[in-house]
Amino acid sequence: MKCEVVAIGTELLLGQIVDTNSSWMGEQLALAGIDSHFQTKVGDNRERMVLALRTALARSDAVIVCGGLGPTQDDITREAIAEVMNVSLVRDEAIVEKIAAMFASRGRQMAENNARQADVPAGASVIEQVRGTAPGLICPVGHKVIYAVPGVPHEMREMVERAVLPDLQVRAGTTATILSRTLRTWGLAESALAEKLGPRLEELDQMESGPTIAFLASGIEGIKVRITVKDADAESAKAVLSAEEATVRAILGDIVFGVDDETMEDTVGAMLKARSLTLGLAESMTGGLVASRLTNVVGASDWFRGSVVSYASEVKFDLLDVPEGPVVSAEAAKAMAEGARKALGADVGLAVTGVAGPAEQDGQPVGTVFFGIAMGDTPADSSEVHLPGDRILVRQFAAISLLDLLRHKLLQQ
Amino acid sequence: MKCEVVAIGTELLLGQIVDTNSSWMGEQLALAGIDSHFQTKVGDNRERMVLALRTALARSDAVIVCGGLGPTQDDITREAIAEVMNVSLVRDEAIVEKIAAMFASRGRQMAENNARQADVPAGASVIEQVRGTAPGLICPVGHKVIYAVPGVPHEMREMVERAVLPDLQVRAGTTATILSRTLRTWGLAESALAEKLGPRLEELDQMESGPTIAFLASGIEGIKVRITVKDADAESAKAVLSAEEATVRAILGDIVFGVDDETMEDTVGAMLKARSLTLGLAESMTGGLVASRLTNVVGASDWFRGSVVSYASEVKFDLLDVPEGPVVSAEAAKAMAEGARKALGADVGLAVTGVAGPAEQDGQPVGTVFFGIAMGDTPADSSEVHLPGDRILVRQFAAISLLDLLRHKLLQQ
Repeated sequence: MKCEVVAIGTELLLGQIVDTNSSWMGEQLALAGIDSHFQTKVGDNRERMVLALRTALARSDAVIVCGGLGPTQDDITREAIAEVMNVSLVRDEAIVEKIAAMFASRGRQMAENNARQADVPAGASVIEQVRGTAPGLICPVGHKVIYAVPGVPHEMREMVERAVLPDLQVRAGTTATILSRTLRTWGLAESALAEKLGPRLEELDQMESGPTIAFLASGIEGIKVRITVKDADAESAKAVLSAEEATVRAILGDIVFGVDDETMEDTVGAMLKARSLTLGLAESMTGGLVASRLTNVVGASDWFRGSVVSYASEVKFDLLDVPEGPVVSAEAAKAMAEGARKALGADVGLAVTGVAGPAEQDGQPVGTVFFGIAMGDTPADSSEVHLPGDRILVRQFAAISLLDLLRHKLLQQ
Repeated sequence: MKCEVVAIGTELLLGQIVDTNSSWMGEQLALAGIDSHFQTKVGDNRERMVLALRTALARSDAVIVCGGLGPTQDDITREAIAEVMNVSLVRDEAIVEKIAAMFASRGRQMAENNARQADVPAGASVIEQVRGTAPGLICPVGHKVIYAVPGVPHEMREMVERAVLPDLQVRAGTTATILSRTLRTWGLAESALAEKLGPRLEELDQMESGPTIAFLASGIEGIKVRITVKDADAESAKAVLSAEEATVRAILGDIVFGVDDETMEDTVGAMLKARSLTLGLAESMTGGLVASRLTNVVGASDWFRGSVVSYASEVKFDLLDVPEGPVVSAEAAKAMAEGARKALGADVGLAVTGVAGPAEQDGQPVGTVFFGIAMGDTPADSSEVHLPGDRILVRQFAAISLLDLLRHKLLQQ
């Protein structure tokens, strides 16, 4: 079973949007054991969309078309697919009503344009939309198939996972199970990680059909170590995966902070909750970034009290009782952590102050960051790091580094 | 003159690398006035590369192939092009010597593999490599042409700018310029925007070669309206673009918040700075998200004081003097705005409290959000909105909505 991806949108060709949707779909297809040999981008032009779809169908068994399902004049994926199928579009009144109800629930009236999103090529079936307005489509073309999914990433992903991949696997008659698990690490560069795991990688290379290990850099979120297992038997696949995870964890130790979609804030939040501790923050250079990550976690109110984003020095002095003086310093970081703990009524106070750039501050170069942590009965502690990159990167590295510092402190408890 | 991009690499299909090279080339081609209707990704497989190149040449006049010029076994772009040209590869000894000299200058010996990079399809000419080892190629195929450039981004960019684009423009015999500008809007759905601009879109449709307008949804950042102009004369293109921007702005009014890469926080920050006003925040359900967006702006310290992220109710009562009672309410939002202004010593106090979910709070359903704003001598003001989506989306919509509220208040000043 071969499946291609066709991404629709003139903005993709003009480079105004980078096509991350196709990359994501390529990864999912590979994990599902479906071969994918080509990906195409084409603009909002009916003739060329039809050509791209026909080209893709000629060399593959299935095509996923992404984008062009919106309500505007240049959203013509439905029309292009109908032409390839050689059928007409039929308006599905049940979908019209559903879209209208969605608008009504937001206190708005549906514009006439939106009804176009209920047009379905005759003979196609509908993939229910649960996050937006445009439904997806499953369109048979002879013994092959075109899937249409929206270009909005979170809508696309939900639909591909729920409806497209399962349908593809049924068509492929795949019996082999492919399982993968991703261990998320923080604190080592990819080369150091590869060196640590080198002997194990060599052992796996010797095996006839053992698990495989791949490294995926994920920018500011550390390096992912993905273990993949392919096995005819699902139970056996699970067992091999778990055994390999245990082996890799034993080698890597506590630089592994999470599994699969687990974020650093998920991990830290779960640790605080398990220890019945509450957290208060004082953020300067990260400007609320750490708090906003922590409050992404469902149930954060169980352990998160709040943050004093003390961007101006006076706010540090007034709200956090930081002594007047240089605010990019170990002393300031410790005072901020104590101040946050007290002002926010938390068990643990965590603080960050530093220089995000573009200019230096308090005689410290860009990338200089001080962390403070106050917990238990001992005096507050501080540490200093020097982070690479521009303003945006320095802020992001500082945020995840601070959370990782807290993780290590909690592990020691 | 039509030119396609073909990106080579199995890692692109597997989603391990996002193909930003093609996006960049698409942008450059558009700016050079070269039409580009398709982009293809294909893996390191000779048969499929040949198929992708033939498909591209069948529908375009020129093809830029990116990647697969390295020294390893799976770098086979040279072989694939030679097959499409129906010629053999000839090793260019001058290039071998150059590569060997490059290794020598770094104190290393050239591995035999690297000599492959000096293989040139008979009849092709070489684009000198000035940053790495693999030279580029200009390969005539009948009256059409294939350009080969390396996949390393900075090597690719240098070669495309220096050699490929000028050669394409000579072949095209055109000096047409394509310019585009993007107006960023907040507050109207794509369909409502399309209806508002409908009459103008129809007028443009009637024109022989007028500007074109496209809508680009950009998730939580609103809808972008892109105006594109193609004109033989660069000065004339600029004038038409500016005139069309004025027309579109007159139709859309103050829902336009920025141009091109300008973010909502850039705009709000510039407005605060121009008015010499400082800002203090009180954030509950957004948990620091608004502050972290604002502090992304370079120079935010000129106008941003800080934020009290009052996630726990007690923090609202203690640090912001919010009267005890339901904290998801218009009264609480107003008190938070006043409290933030006072506690942070700011001219303007801005507050948000609401229910991000997953569970309701204070008897209010998920998506209920109250904004508060305190500025000038009048009492604080509040407004209520109901936002769609899950926890993450509700928080993000709330953050940009709050910034847009401030923008409108400042516009009224």
